Amino acid sequence: MILAIDVGGTKMAAGLVAPDGTVITSRRAATPQNADAETLWHTLTTLIDPLSARAEGVGVGCGGPMTWPDGEVSPLNIPGWRGFPLRARLTGRFPGLPVRLHNDAICLAVAEHWRGAGQGSADMLGMVVSTGVGGGLILGGRLVNGGTGNAGHIGHVVVEPDGGPRCGCGGHGCLEAIARGPALTTWALAQGWTPAAVSEPVEASEGPEAYLEDRAVTGRALAADALAGDPVAVLAMRRAGRALGIAIASATHLCDLDLVTIGGGLSQAGEPLFGPLEEALRDHARMGFARRLKVVPAALGQEAGLVGAAALLLAGDAYWPSTRD
Amino acid sequence: MILAIDVGGTKMAAGLVAPDGTVITSRRAATPQNADAETLWHTLTTLIDPLSARAEGVGVGCGGPMTWPDGEVSPLNIPGWRGFPLRARLTGRFPGLPVRLHNDAICLAVAEHWRGAGQGSADMLGMVVSTGVGGGLILGGRLVNGGTGNAGHIGHVVVEPDGGPRCGCGGHGCLEAIARGPALTTWALAQGWTPAAVSEPVEASEGPEAYLEDRAVTGRALAADALAGDPVAVLAMRRAGRALGIAIASATHLCDLDLVTIGGGLSQAGEPLFGPLEEALRDHARMGFARRLKVVPAALGQEAGLVGAAALLLAGDAYWPSTRD
Repeated sequence: MILAIDVGGTKMAAGLVAPDGTVITSRRAATPQNADAETLWHTLTTLIDPLSARAEGVGVGCGGPMTWPDGEVSPLNIPGWRGFPLRARLTGRFPGLPVRLHNDAICLAVAEHWRGAGQGSADMLGMVVSTGVGGGLILGGRLVNGGTGNAGHIGHVVVEPDGGPRCGCGGHGCLEAIARGPALTTWALAQGWTPAAVSEPVEASEGPEAYLEDRAVTGRALAADALAGDPVAVLAMRRAGRALGIAIASATHLCDLDLVTIGGGLSQAGEPLFGPLEEALRDHARMGFARRLKVVPAALGQEAGLVGAAALLLAGDAYWPSTRD
Repeated sequence: MILAIDVGGTKMAAGLVAPDGTVITSRRAATPQNADAETLWHTLTTLIDPLSARAEGVGVGCGGPMTWPDGEVSPLNIPGWRGFPLRARLTGRFPGLPVRLHNDAICLAVAEHWRGAGQGSADMLGMVVSTGVGGGLILGGRLVNGGTGNAGHIGHVVVEPDGGPRCGCGGHGCLEAIARGPALTTWALAQGWTPAAVSEPVEASEGPEAYLEDRAVTGRALAADALAGDPVAVLAMRRAGRALGIAIASATHLCDLDLVTIGGGLSQAGEPLFGPLEEALRDHARMGFARRLKVVPAALGQEAGLVGAAALLLAGDAYWPSTRD
């Protein structure tokens, strides 16, 4: 049984995962906001300690960046951890147990390949489109780590080199700068989107920014409105789908992929997202070998992160390099 | 000793390559133009037969596309071979010898990694910028083939999605559509480039197309003129460099590369190409892990194709999948 841990900016989750990938039990806690490193660590240990008695190993997915495979983490959305030695601390807490840690987006890709929509694919990119746009690359049936553990960063493939929006990475025109949920909702609000999920419309004088305070104004809400036919939300999904299609075409030509899975809040958008995505993809992915590519929604739900973290140990032959323990 | 073969649209080359990668002897012949399949095969066998007595294996690089690893080849620039069973024919001619065949661009990348500018790199893209733009991807120290043997197609990464030029692949805005030699010379002639290497300037009334008949009007000649300070040639190199920098930034983020090597005629352009390339690359490759990337000219000369073809056997652990013999 593997103790699996999933650390994100808004929540921490932990669970026990059986050798076949079944999550036997799981717990979650809100990630303390504005907390220092030890407060964060305390929250995590309180969450995982009750699960640890039966654990034979520890698998962790955590927001990046991080040093890998050492696992000193500096998650963008957890300012209290900067260079926090998460893997070493877990090794100290569970002496004798192997501890493996990877980027959370990579764990989601691994989960889809191992037990989700990517089963049987030899060459796939597992994407997540949410607050950020991330991914993990599986080639020849094995996870590609890259020299620093950072392979799979599809969110920073360039899709709009001329005058594209600034990206959090410091570049511009990256896929993430266009297709991440907050970028899309900001764009949609500026185009006059009135979110259906918001209880009370803001006064016109307050401007669209007022909506951004509302937690209902998310990429997921925008996707839902697009599905319901809201014209601006439909345009926003078209914008995201086109950017995704271009980036996927580039990745397919470079890596000879057969499958892309898309998870995260935006993947719920259905045809308003996947239609324009397919259109841009087929417009650009014209090499013969690229035609076999399929793009499908991710199959696993919110426990995917735990499944992928556990797979780092339960299916280490495919998902953990033999030279890096 | 490996019998190495390099088949291209203008020439065929063959050589004997020692276990350490030294080309002991080599021969070349012009590829017959407008020839049928058997005439082409006859030219090849005439070239290779004198070298075959000492061969313990046969390695082949050939223009794509092809089925891989079966080696039925349909090189774009050799119309007489469509679905020609090159690997099977060589196996028939040299019974008992292993025959391995791959895309010529991949052989060049393998050569640079094994014995050229890429030695010691774990994660590199070996590029060739010439009549086409191709590449080969080495990740974790091993050649990435992709499911159909087509990984490394950097030439069809999208760098100008809006209104970019049509590409031979059927798409538009591909790196190759902008940076391949013929595209650049056409662009430069339209901007008023007068090639220094052409013996007699054409009459203005003939228009720039007249130059295209001249075999001196190549990407290599354009690169030389740029180095000599011709202002239009400098602009053409800037155009190519920028496109290359954007594509390399995307590939680096996706694959966590540490090195890109650039070979082919255009790689002789020096600062007029590599300056704008670095500028665009650093503008877009902003993730921390991408900063370690180095872009260098390829180190091997015209025998690189033979060295890489031989490496498919001489260093098969890294460059040939164990499951594909």
